Amino acid sequence: MDFERLQKLSNRSTDIARSCKDIRDIYGEKEDGLYYLTTAYGTKYQTFCDMTTAGGGWTLVASVHENSLPGRCTVGDRWSSQQGSNPDLPDGDGNWSNRNTFGTAEGATSDDFKNPGYYDILAEDMSVWHVPNNFPIEHWNLGAILRYHTNNRFLRLYGGNLFYLFMRYPVRYNTGSCADRGPAVPIVYDHGDKELTNNLYGPNSRLEFDPGYITFRAINNERAAMAICSGVKTKGCNTEYYCIGGGGHFPEHSKQCGDFTAFDWDRNGGNPVWSASKEISESAVLLFYR
Amino acid sequence: MDFERLQKLSNRSTDIARSCKDIRDIYGEKEDGLYYLTTAYGTKYQTFCDMTTAGGGWTLVASVHENSLPGRCTVGDRWSSQQGSNPDLPDGDGNWSNRNTFGTAEGATSDDFKNPGYYDILAEDMSVWHVPNNFPIEHWNLGAILRYHTNNRFLRLYGGNLFYLFMRYPVRYNTGSCADRGPAVPIVYDHGDKELTNNLYGPNSRLEFDPGYITFRAINNERAAMAICSGVKTKGCNTEYYCIGGGGHFPEHSKQCGDFTAFDWDRNGGNPVWSASKEISESAVLLFYR
Amino acid sequence: MDFERLQKLSNRSTDIARSCKDIRDIYGEKEDGLYYLTTAYGTKYQTFCDMTTAGGGWTLVASVHENSLPGRCTVGDRWSSQQGSNPDLPDGDGNWSNRNTFGTAEGATSDDFKNPGYYDILAEDMSVWHVPNNFPIEHWNLGAILRYHTNNRFLRLYGGNLFYLFMRYPVRYNTGSCADRGPAVPIVYDHGDKELTNNLYGPNSRLEFDPGYITFRAINNERAAMAICSGVKTKGCNTEYYCIGGGGHFPEHSKQCGDFTAFDWDRNGGNPVWSASKEISESAVLLFYR
Repeated sequence: MDFERLQKLSNRSTDIARSCKDIRDIYGEKEDGLYYLTTAYGTKYQTFCDMTTAGGGWTLVASVHENSLPGRCTVGDRWSSQQGSNPDLPDGDGNWSNRNTFGTAEGATSDDFKNPGYYDILAEDMSVWHVPNNFPIEHWNLGAILRYHTNNRFLRLYGGNLFYLFMRYPVRYNTGSCADRGPAVPIVYDHGDKELTNNLYGPNSRLEFDPGYITFRAINNERAAMAICSGVKTKGCNTEYYCIGGGGHFPEHSKQCGDFTAFDWDRNGGNPVWSASKEISESAVLLFYR
Repeated sequence: MDFERLQKLSNRSTDIARSCKDIRDIYGEKEDGLYYLTTAYGTKYQTFCDMTTAGGGWTLVASVHENSLPGRCTVGDRWSSQQGSNPDLPDGDGNWSNRNTFGTAEGATSDDFKNPGYYDILAEDMSVWHVPNNFPIEHWNLGAILRYHTNNRFLRLYGGNLFYLFMRYPVRYNTGSCADRGPAVPIVYDHGDKELTNNLYGPNSRLEFDPGYITFRAINNERAAMAICSGVKTKGCNTEYYCIGGGGHFPEHSKQCGDFTAFDWDRNGGNPVWSASKEISESAVLLFYR
Repeated sequence: MDFERLQKLSNRSTDIARSCKDIRDIYGEKEDGLYYLTTAYGTKYQTFCDMTTAGGGWTLVASVHENSLPGRCTVGDRWSSQQGSNPDLPDGDGNWSNRNTFGTAEGATSDDFKNPGYYDILAEDMSVWHVPNNFPIEHWNLGAILRYHTNNRFLRLYGGNLFYLFMRYPVRYNTGSCADRGPAVPIVYDHGDKELTNNLYGPNSRLEFDPGYITFRAINNERAAMAICSGVKTKGCNTEYYCIGGGGHFPEHSKQCGDFTAFDWDRNGGNPVWSASKEISESAVLLFYR
């Protein structure tokens, strides 16, 4: 056992901070890893800090992990609904805009993760990592197939985090039409580029979006709501093929309901035109604030 | 960041106590908020202490949150059954009388919550708060639609907590008839009164109970068991309209199975006579010991 | 409140160790109970250490608890699948070989449990306790119906823990035939013996195994995979009657799918020949490393 290493990690529990940005600014920590944070109300939790990307100070607050693409809003679909596609439950599980938490940082590529930072931290920008399922935490950075961040401080306009952003733009079935999508924010690539983004989604999907953005609260033709379109700005309305998370009802087909929506729509058809790539479908989406 | 405030909250982790009553008595703490507790066996956890109501010292040990009234003993119905209404599973998930725990204090109005205090703390009285779903913890007290507590030390007769009380009065299908209900204990109102209690339930239900009590382990006409009838003493046997939690089988109709049983029974019928109010149906039930 | 006792338990949180073996070796602790451990990456967690059996130093890393034998890969079947028996999900929930964690040590006989030690600790041997459901932690040792351990350091050949062992021998439907089972390791009994092991399973099952071993990754006639055959070395191929955990598909019958597979196969038939005993079916399987 590397005793000194463990002792150093353990001593981090005495740091008092509300975000990884605080940890960087107040304690001068520059090493990626797990740190303890405390919410404004006093809840203490451990999460991963990215201390290197674009100056560091990024707090991991959530991961969206698809545990079963064949599932249709079944157990494990915490970012859409675990109750089946049902118009009587327009918000689904509602985790995009409540204070429920689940999972652990070390397990964030093996299952859904949401910590108190999701609703507690007041931030300006977001960073997103797509990391292959079950990848170990010490290799997330190198293993990610796509990494990017925003740098225009857009969260200041929407309450400071996703909890408040999605209060304003509810991830709810039948809350509006395709034209009512939320903000589309330009991104800076840390790993990957626009061409790679294009190739992560199906050929027909590429005709419906512009790469180089992150879009929040998309709505499709049938008025189903989705939470995040990672890497793209939506132009079309078949958003279930390139956006993730969602409300509780997908009218076109229950197969579209789930954390990764219809990413596997026509993959078994021999020549898929809508399905997303296997790479992005089998990667967890890690969400950071700064 | 309010650094001194966070530091103060963090320092609470050095307190050693088994209940909020201990925190009050030993450390003289008088502020509502999160504190660390330790079970007799050594499990450490954080929960909310109400340090003001009737002298304070109340420990939040659980919340019953209905995530989906249309659900029928589906995912999230931890206080009844997540396996469907099934006579072969008379105890359902069994959480009223086991040591399983779930959720967090800050998330207690967003999802079910149960901490080790539920089975570990030896108490005399209970307090109950009905707080609208997703209400933030700092405003629970003011936001509650109903708050009350017992003051006759009834828990001393039943083992000191709900874990032991429900060992004696199992929340189990077919364990007895409507006449075999558990104790009905008089309450003192901290917010609300008997009239308000009446109005929280349907007009027909009001003919079946007396307000001003809390009843444990009710049994309905079809021998389905429920855990808590909040604010009332049962006289009738259609307890599925005003009692919550339950065993694993509701013979009359699977729609009655769930954490909030049949609170939505005839709400869609235009002129509901049994359904509970929208207010109580969309509030989490927070359970405290002292 | 026994204040000194609580204080002593609480002080254990300053120990820095990666396993109960470390706690014993570095800090000289000899008392069974809860201790804090830290993973190589810094995640801190509390678990139970058995400090007495065969020299002590055993870390509880998981428990397999059957919440509903009638369930068929439904909610709570985390060690097989919560998605129903489905050939499109050959790995089921995949928890035998990922970093997802759930449950608590004190609740380990009331629900499934898996902590970071499962994938983090590098060990040589395993110990297994079968403890009746809902038994309190302070009496697990005396209450167990079967306890045994290995002593040939077999884990050194398979990566040091179950996480790596099951990487090599995936708990996956259709990954091989009955002949492709993983290692069968001889055991030393701490409570019980070969005769008792025999009697825990059905009469027909006894013709298919030798007691006195623990077998990993068994495969049945229909190519369904199971994780652990506790107490026995498989000779036959109807392993669903005496092995637990599993992948996501059981072709013979969906009733075989679940954490405790087909332990209740013909119990309702009057004269069961395959069903396991009520005793083992209603006990959680606690897994330790050293």
